[in-house]
Amino acid sequence: MPGSSLGKLFTVTNFGESHGPAIGCVIDGCPPGMALSEVDIQPDLDRRKPGTSRHVTQRREEDRVEILSGVFEGKTTGTPIALLIRNEDQRSKDYGTIAEAFRPGHADYTYWQKFGVRDYRGGGRSSARLTAPTVAAGAVAKKWLQARFGVAVRGYLAQLGPNRIAFESWDAVPANPFFAPNASVVAALEAYMDQLRKSGESCGARINVVASGVPVGWGEPIYDRLDAAIAHAMMGLNAVKGVEIGAGFASVEQLGTQHSDEITPQGFLSNNAGGILGGISTGQDITVSIAIKPTSSIRLDRRTIDQAGEPVVINTHGRHDPCVGIRATPIAEALLALVLIDHALLHRAQCGDVALPTRAVPARATGVPLTPAPQADDPEPLEA
Amino acid sequence: MPGSSLGKLFTVTNFGESHGPAIGCVIDGCPPGMALSEVDIQPDLDRRKPGTSRHVTQRREEDRVEILSGVFEGKTTGTPIALLIRNEDQRSKDYGTIAEAFRPGHADYTYWQKFGVRDYRGGGRSSARLTAPTVAAGAVAKKWLQARFGVAVRGYLAQLGPNRIAFESWDAVPANPFFAPNASVVAALEAYMDQLRKSGESCGARINVVASGVPVGWGEPIYDRLDAAIAHAMMGLNAVKGVEIGAGFASVEQLGTQHSDEITPQGFLSNNAGGILGGISTGQDITVSIAIKPTSSIRLDRRTIDQAGEPVVINTHGRHDPCVGIRATPIAEALLALVLIDHALLHRAQCGDVALPTRAVPARATGVPLTPAPQADDPEPLEA
Amino acid sequence: MPGSSLGKLFTVTNFGESHGPAIGCVIDGCPPGMALSEVDIQPDLDRRKPGTSRHVTQRREEDRVEILSGVFEGKTTGTPIALLIRNEDQRSKDYGTIAEAFRPGHADYTYWQKFGVRDYRGGGRSSARLTAPTVAAGAVAKKWLQARFGVAVRGYLAQLGPNRIAFESWDAVPANPFFAPNASVVAALEAYMDQLRKSGESCGARINVVASGVPVGWGEPIYDRLDAAIAHAMMGLNAVKGVEIGAGFASVEQLGTQHSDEITPQGFLSNNAGGILGGISTGQDITVSIAIKPTSSIRLDRRTIDQAGEPVVINTHGRHDPCVGIRATPIAEALLALVLIDHALLHRAQCGDVALPTRAVPARATGVPLTPAPQADDPEPLEA
Amino acid sequence: MPGSSLGKLFTVTNFGESHGPAIGCVIDGCPPGMALSEVDIQPDLDRRKPGTSRHVTQRREEDRVEILSGVFEGKTTGTPIALLIRNEDQRSKDYGTIAEAFRPGHADYTYWQKFGVRDYRGGGRSSARLTAPTVAAGAVAKKWLQARFGVAVRGYLAQLGPNRIAFESWDAVPANPFFAPNASVVAALEAYMDQLRKSGESCGARINVVASGVPVGWGEPIYDRLDAAIAHAMMGLNAVKGVEIGAGFASVEQLGTQHSDEITPQGFLSNNAGGILGGISTGQDITVSIAIKPTSSIRLDRRTIDQAGEPVVINTHGRHDPCVGIRATPIAEALLALVLIDHALLHRAQCGDVALPTRAVPARATGVPLTPAPQADDPEPLEA
Repeated sequence: MPGSSLGKLFTVTNFGESHGPAIGCVIDGCPPGMALSEVDIQPDLDRRKPGTSRHVTQRREEDRVEILSGVFEGKTTGTPIALLIRNEDQRSKDYGTIAEAFRPGHADYTYWQKFGVRDYRGGGRSSARLTAPTVAAGAVAKKWLQARFGVAVRGYLAQLGPNRIAFESWDAVPANPFFAPNASVVAALEAYMDQLRKSGESCGARINVVASGVPVGWGEPIYDRLDAAIAHAMMGLNAVKGVEIGAGFASVEQLGTQHSDEITPQGFLSNNAGGILGGISTGQDITVSIAIKPTSSIRLDRRTIDQAGEPVVINTHGRHDPCVGIRATPIAEALLALVLIDHALLHRAQCGDVALPTRAVPARATGVPLTPAPQADDPEPLEA
Repeated sequence: MPGSSLGKLFTVTNFGESHGPAIGCVIDGCPPGMALSEVDIQPDLDRRKPGTSRHVTQRREEDRVEILSGVFEGKTTGTPIALLIRNEDQRSKDYGTIAEAFRPGHADYTYWQKFGVRDYRGGGRSSARLTAPTVAAGAVAKKWLQARFGVAVRGYLAQLGPNRIAFESWDAVPANPFFAPNASVVAALEAYMDQLRKSGESCGARINVVASGVPVGWGEPIYDRLDAAIAHAMMGLNAVKGVEIGAGFASVEQLGTQHSDEITPQGFLSNNAGGILGGISTGQDITVSIAIKPTSSIRLDRRTIDQAGEPVVINTHGRHDPCVGIRATPIAEALLALVLIDHALLHRAQCGDVALPTRAVPARATGVPLTPAPQADDPEPLEA
Repeated sequence: MPGSSLGKLFTVTNFGESHGPAIGCVIDGCPPGMALSEVDIQPDLDRRKPGTSRHVTQRREEDRVEILSGVFEGKTTGTPIALLIRNEDQRSKDYGTIAEAFRPGHADYTYWQKFGVRDYRGGGRSSARLTAPTVAAGAVAKKWLQARFGVAVRGYLAQLGPNRIAFESWDAVPANPFFAPNASVVAALEAYMDQLRKSGESCGARINVVASGVPVGWGEPIYDRLDAAIAHAMMGLNAVKGVEIGAGFASVEQLGTQHSDEITPQGFLSNNAGGILGGISTGQDITVSIAIKPTSSIRLDRRTIDQAGEPVVINTHGRHDPCVGIRATPIAEALLALVLIDHALLHRAQCGDVALPTRAVPARATGVPLTPAPQADDPEPLEA
Repeated sequence: MPGSSLGKLFTVTNFGESHGPAIGCVIDGCPPGMALSEVDIQPDLDRRKPGTSRHVTQRREEDRVEILSGVFEGKTTGTPIALLIRNEDQRSKDYGTIAEAFRPGHADYTYWQKFGVRDYRGGGRSSARLTAPTVAAGAVAKKWLQARFGVAVRGYLAQLGPNRIAFESWDAVPANPFFAPNASVVAALEAYMDQLRKSGESCGARINVVASGVPVGWGEPIYDRLDAAIAHAMMGLNAVKGVEIGAGFASVEQLGTQHSDEITPQGFLSNNAGGILGGISTGQDITVSIAIKPTSSIRLDRRTIDQAGEPVVINTHGRHDPCVGIRATPIAEALLALVLIDHALLHRAQCGDVALPTRAVPARATGVPLTPAPQADDPEPLEA
């Protein structure tokens, strides 16, 4: 398969460009008989869509999704679900320099050299706009995971530039435009973003995602492990430069007794594994953390070259997110959900006749604190 | 495809268990006409094999590879290359507790619950021994990448537990048992490992891998990006908990002007991208960094449960690596090489008729320092 | 991958139902830089579309295709090409019996039992209408094959019910509503069809497809052979019950000296192989023949059961093709083209560095007659 | 994936050459917990192996299979099952002409031109010997299908050259060296073969394969239909030139009322569909028929060219099957079993929660005769 499909059995094929007529995806392999309509999908699209606060791009896109197939009388039929989102705000403009020169940090240079042709309008295929179909497909996956297994997939902003955000509660997340799990930091984040926009700069972010309720047994031993599939999906997202599972990079400095999670009949005593051992889910929370680089589209001058190979100076005006990480939380959730549904199906394909031979260990023993995904450079070992 | 295959067009299918009759792999899709014999493969296997120093497991395995197919009169034929390694040192022993109880941090519990059956001898399928076929296949990939494109894939140990190792030179790497790129740290590493073994503990590690000479244009825009494929391969390796490309997690705290790599006709001015933009190679060094957790097999007591779900205390004696990261360098190199050859083939499949429309930018401008893969918690932005 | 995608590197993912809002497909992996617009695709859709003569269904569908992505300034960009066809004539009606009972020969029973839900409107997903996206994708493949390699893919009706049609010339094919390669039989075919419609019956057909100009070397040795891929694609088409390559079933009664095609420097002396040996193209015409069963939708009474498992009598009124084979020629061409482009890309991925070691043998030696795909029960060995 | 793997979820990767050190395969995705040892596999290998009668090649190969992995304490573990067969009878000889010239009807020319290198020893990779690993894998599939679903996969020789063999009973099949389902024809077949060998000629054959007990619901609507997967597998077998499902090519001349199988609560009234409607199994017998071309290795003179492109005359002495179809029955069974297990797993992946909404219709109503796979040129419609 070429690269625009994600998943082996619940497969999402993504299409579209930022300023073409439409974007969308085809989901193939969805289990039949699940109630589904646009109403199930739109909320996650709305969480991701531009223009929801002054801290994100002001492009106006309603991101209205239309289900073109695969649903009959309100239920999935098991045949491909095509989802269509028309592009609306393709503000006519002169692309001048951008069409001719390669913006540093962008895919301009690599697309051009790979394909010999490049849709430069709004970044074309490399635009973060193309994450909308992923989010739409993820909403379908989330619904099934919740209905069939009680799995919940939730994410939050863990760091915005230099601002680390302590996890306080899931309830805080939808109550601010940053998906921050802590109401007390919101004012500081707003101030930081206002100053950043004023300076013409951009910043990076860290997003944590957690899947709760995943049964033990999803995943595979070698190569296509569950963690490998998660890493693939996350690193396949624009601007992501790092992925961690569980203790992540902090595990480099842990000792064996600190890292490995002890087990009791009452539950695991820690979760450095991030819910995955040997590529297979343990039944604990699956915890993932990703690093998102600062937006490359900034209005400050940068050195680059043009198509002729000549040096030029470029800066990028227009409507851009000063931190693409702000809108990344629903996308990361969608990606994790897509990986999980795929592995749920893979697991029952091969092991559908296996009855759990030992009673499942609870996700955590009483008294063990909630452990959202850690931060790599946390000075303390996670559970110490 | 089930999970035991890696790559779409240069596909490695891995088989075997630690204490079964043999391990090995089948490579399908290798380009024909390349000179190949066991002599090309054995050196990388020897770099990975156990027993090479007192700091790694003392299991005695020669890891002799036999080419069973796909080579005729010393050349690859384009048909599957089967590689076989017989297991030799399957020391007969009483697996007692290990057969009945689940070692914390190991795949024992997840395999058992997934499959309802588990080869507990030496970890069975979850043993790090199963990386040998990956290394063997990687040697084939490396040879082709070097011969066809001049690509070199090299790795080194960047951190051993708390000991960070400054990159000094590639020449140092083969000269010590740690793959450390710096001769001056070796004595300290040896002392650290000796103390660790004495204490019964284990430690984590960080490995950096760099591919030089990769042409611009390998990779894809969405989902199966080159960085996504790398993350998948690396996170699919036993004990890996984190993957970074380029600046990795350090990019969270970078500003836009710090992160995005400016371009001049003389070369890129930095490499925070780690050689990949928009999922496609830029022509710069591809830099990858991975976190390896501490070995879970330690001889100190750990709480766990047995197959009946009852609490037990377990400790693991026998021949184990106190830091699996020490032998991980050749494996990480192999994985990167396998991803690269796959994308080299994918690229020429689709874009074989594209002539580079703009002269390729050199990997780095004169005076820009060599940039091996960074460390996430580097206090300074990478190129500042 | 679930089943709705065709091809490994030039991958077509099909979606839609007969009476849903739209049908279409996404092509992933198309080589970049090829001029493409709706004008290239519409003609083949028009050849397939309903209502073009009194011998096919009278449903009115313009089958207007819209390119939603993957084309920029008139050229393919190498990113997914989404093709959309809105359904227009979804005549509101009472589906009564059809919604409740399973039409013999149709997919009603199997869809219902597999998925537990079934879009019964016009056959839903099992409608021949879903071949339109295949034809659209095939037009893209055909254009590239012609432009890049000079490959021509052409088909014709070889038999209509009991009426065998001798191949006369390609020029005749577009000049009649049957795709018959012989003008002299058209009147008889029309009379046959008129009588068939009057009787309420339906009939089967045989379609032959030929690809000329395919270079030697496309295909693979084992399992995914070129002929296997063709058989897969053809048997994946609604109503197809048999597939032959070259001499097909006639080869059962051939002797070794009759079947195997001798080679001379001036060309092959026959083409019983149908252009494929050992799963790889020879450079001769690739000749394929398929059997299409009679339409199952007939207005004569048939015994069946309903959803409750009770016996009922059913007959199917409405707008149906009395012979689906009549419109199958452009579809079979599209399928062959899709297989060929896929193997063209696969071949250059693996063997892009192989220079033809021996001068290619011409497709046929002078004086050897043109050999369109044979008929299985031809009493004479093909080239005798 | 390159071409040497068959199946999506139960995936067989084949390796080896006729005269290399070994042949074999890796099965990935086998359900865990099934009792398995070499004893389950060897009988089918023995049915296929050379030298069992004077009518097949006299090469001496015991075809002893060794299980290298994936089985622990007599049960499948769910991890890859590697099967190894050492080549024993690689009679040292001078390949002279064969090494330099291309045998008509063989893959010599196409392999050479595709890969630029060719293992000419015994046909190398294109040898029918490479069907042994397929048979071995098929035995595993058969065992699971039988144990889990009561599915039986059986085949027989339906035609040998001009000799059509009426189906008499399954019991006759193992009682003669031809797999003929009719004891009364055996003497005639032996006489025919003796005369054929004497003349230096070879002949074709037709094999029918039937799977009984397949539940309703396996397969998919578009492209990767169950019949498409069967056609792919069968046409991927050496020497196969045609594939039919159910009525096959006979359906071309059937009328709608003759072809479509009526349904009653007591069972289907005929089986022209061959057990598949809309790409999905109906619960009836799945009936498949394949055409096998005459062996190309004959000792009579044939015109061809050599590697320099010069005309030469070639003839093939040595140990060859005068009719490869004779040993093809167990191979065709294996291929059908491999397709079925794959679709069994695919089905429960997606539709594992669907409870059969309507009671399954019996395979056939009382009084409806047994219908093994038909012959294309049967003058009478199948059930008339």
